Amino acid sequence: MVKSLAVERAGSSAIRDLLEITEQPGIVSLAGGLPNPAAFPAEALARAAAAALAEDPVSALQYGPTEGLRPLRRWVAERHGLGADGDGGGDAHVIVTSGSQQALELATRALVDPGGLIALADPAYVGALQAFRAAGVALEAIPSDADGLRTDALAERLAAGARPALVYVVANFDNPSGSTLSAERRVELAGLADRYGFWIIDDDPYGELRWNGRAPVALRDLTDRTITLGSTSKVLAPGLRTGWAVAPAEVIRAMTILKQSADLHTSSFNQQVVHRTLSEPGFLDAHLAGLRTTYRAQADHLVGALHHQLGDRLSVVAPDGGMFLWAELHDASADTASLLPAALERGVAFVPGAAFGVESLHPTRMRLSYATADPADLDLAVERLAEVVPVP
Amino acid sequence: MVKSLAVERAGSSAIRDLLEITEQPGIVSLAGGLPNPAAFPAEALARAAAAALAEDPVSALQYGPTEGLRPLRRWVAERHGLGADGDGGGDAHVIVTSGSQQALELATRALVDPGGLIALADPAYVGALQAFRAAGVALEAIPSDADGLRTDALAERLAAGARPALVYVVANFDNPSGSTLSAERRVELAGLADRYGFWIIDDDPYGELRWNGRAPVALRDLTDRTITLGSTSKVLAPGLRTGWAVAPAEVIRAMTILKQSADLHTSSFNQQVVHRTLSEPGFLDAHLAGLRTTYRAQADHLVGALHHQLGDRLSVVAPDGGMFLWAELHDASADTASLLPAALERGVAFVPGAAFGVESLHPTRMRLSYATADPADLDLAVERLAEVVPVP
Repeated sequence: MVKSLAVERAGSSAIRDLLEITEQPGIVSLAGGLPNPAAFPAEALARAAAAALAEDPVSALQYGPTEGLRPLRRWVAERHGLGADGDGGGDAHVIVTSGSQQALELATRALVDPGGLIALADPAYVGALQAFRAAGVALEAIPSDADGLRTDALAERLAAGARPALVYVVANFDNPSGSTLSAERRVELAGLADRYGFWIIDDDPYGELRWNGRAPVALRDLTDRTITLGSTSKVLAPGLRTGWAVAPAEVIRAMTILKQSADLHTSSFNQQVVHRTLSEPGFLDAHLAGLRTTYRAQADHLVGALHHQLGDRLSVVAPDGGMFLWAELHDASADTASLLPAALERGVAFVPGAAFGVESLHPTRMRLSYATADPADLDLAVERLAEVVPVP
Repeated sequence: MVKSLAVERAGSSAIRDLLEITEQPGIVSLAGGLPNPAAFPAEALARAAAAALAEDPVSALQYGPTEGLRPLRRWVAERHGLGADGDGGGDAHVIVTSGSQQALELATRALVDPGGLIALADPAYVGALQAFRAAGVALEAIPSDADGLRTDALAERLAAGARPALVYVVANFDNPSGSTLSAERRVELAGLADRYGFWIIDDDPYGELRWNGRAPVALRDLTDRTITLGSTSKVLAPGLRTGWAVAPAEVIRAMTILKQSADLHTSSFNQQVVHRTLSEPGFLDAHLAGLRTTYRAQADHLVGALHHQLGDRLSVVAPDGGMFLWAELHDASADTASLLPAALERGVAFVPGAAFGVESLHPTRMRLSYATADPADLDLAVERLAEVVPVP
């Protein structure tokens, strides 16, 4: 009845199944990709919502432009170092989207024909895999390591004739691997983009969550062929579904036409609330400082507990930011997917490496999020993991 | 650089150009498709927003299910006469979307393959034309009259071999024609859907704005092959971007998988605000009564002024609801598209029939909205129209 093609192309809904695991009572979940709800700035958002509806209800409630409200687009442009007087105005390089997931889907549809090729690190973010598969494109899995996508391997594929229309990276604190693409590789990737004429999507929801060291040079400062995706989901709250893309004006125009059919525009109310909150003097710096302190403490706690109790059985890298650890089990014959049922029985959840596989299954890997559990729960989670992680 | 295909397929952005006309100073616009901002229930929404953030901030701000928040889905199911204990629960038949525009795009992608066929009345809603063209489908234009889509003409096309995957209608107070599909034609359309196996999308943003007579039987009560689209845009406010589809569970599942890639889910915050507002005891009935009174008064005023000043030059049908008149000029050689520049010069805007053409250009037609102008402005608009509408 309903054509099966659309359903199959969009792939299975791994995220949904995992969210259901998270919701089971008694389980300490390190599986979620959710930010910490205790850090949601509910009071600041409530002030912004009340002010938006009292001071300018028509802007908050009427239809708005497809590209997004101009003050928010200007804020984004400035945050990304684009002046208001840039090429056509900084805001000509910005579209506000219904979460950065929508920016990802629109950019994919604007830049890649069905049947076209997208190259990306293996493992990869599940939502990107779903959007790419729904768009009917082919995927080229590129190996990755602690410094992110291996640009040497990408260069080999390109030299051998692979012609991706775009390369997708989460350059800062990758999901699931937690890796940050090194500065050297960023330069290499940008050079390859210019040489071979592909686009780069730099999906950046976690970049503001850095508590150690400095971010390497941004890809968009290395090549104009970059679409940078941003989001308020990890900075303010996901329920506002407000994200954006920063890209050359021609890409923004193509995405805008597609967005018009897709949902006309992103909620004016949420855009007003987001813009007012982000613009409140002193708010964002203080809020980000608090978020980083919380996440850093939880990351340090989880890494410490894992080293202490499971140091002989798995390895993790202490992160400089973001939300995830990409633990590697030492038992080379381990299969984290088959360990999951036993872990759930003991009351701890993680995401097995296979969930993020493009071509590989990453059987010795598991993604652990430290974002939502407090130290006591993190200890409990590690105790329970210790009952199921094999000794090599 | 950016592939041209996506841009061309999505068609030109007529709505955007028209919105720009509306915004010119000194122009009385009957061109907009916007609801009356004076009727936005800003105070009720502010109460709901404050309560949502104070009482249950995590539900309002965290990621939520792709199908939408269950309380809102249940409210929609009940509003459409589906019990909570229906086939799999009434809410299994509901998906909440980022405005009904998104529901339209997702249903199109779920039900029609690229290259497939959609039949619809000519003239048609511009946003639907854009979504269909962006999906790469072919369109079969069916003549329509004051009783809506001519089902006899559709039956002839079907008998001649046309095989649409779906038929799109705005059965209540069509945009642009203002027509309501008659009960007899609804029965015929449903019978054809069952016989030929096509789906019906019944796009219904205006059904709650009825101030005269009773609605004919709903298409979804005549055939299970119906997807009914609803929206809060004309009932509460468009800036909330909250709409829905009511459909067989298999269609909802297919749309849900596509929505997951498209934007994960609709804003939890807006869904909470909408649900709390719609559920406030007594609110909705009183609010709708006020809306209907306002729109009715403005419709009566515009129809009266047009009859009085232009009765020899154009005809309009007094509406029973909705937002639009589909005026017909008596001069058979008139071309409303070519009249528009002169009208704008005199300070009045309308939408020429050509903007809504599927195959025909409707040169003697113009769409006039009475939703946003007050009686004094409506008088001014008619005076200015009188300077440009030709005497037959």
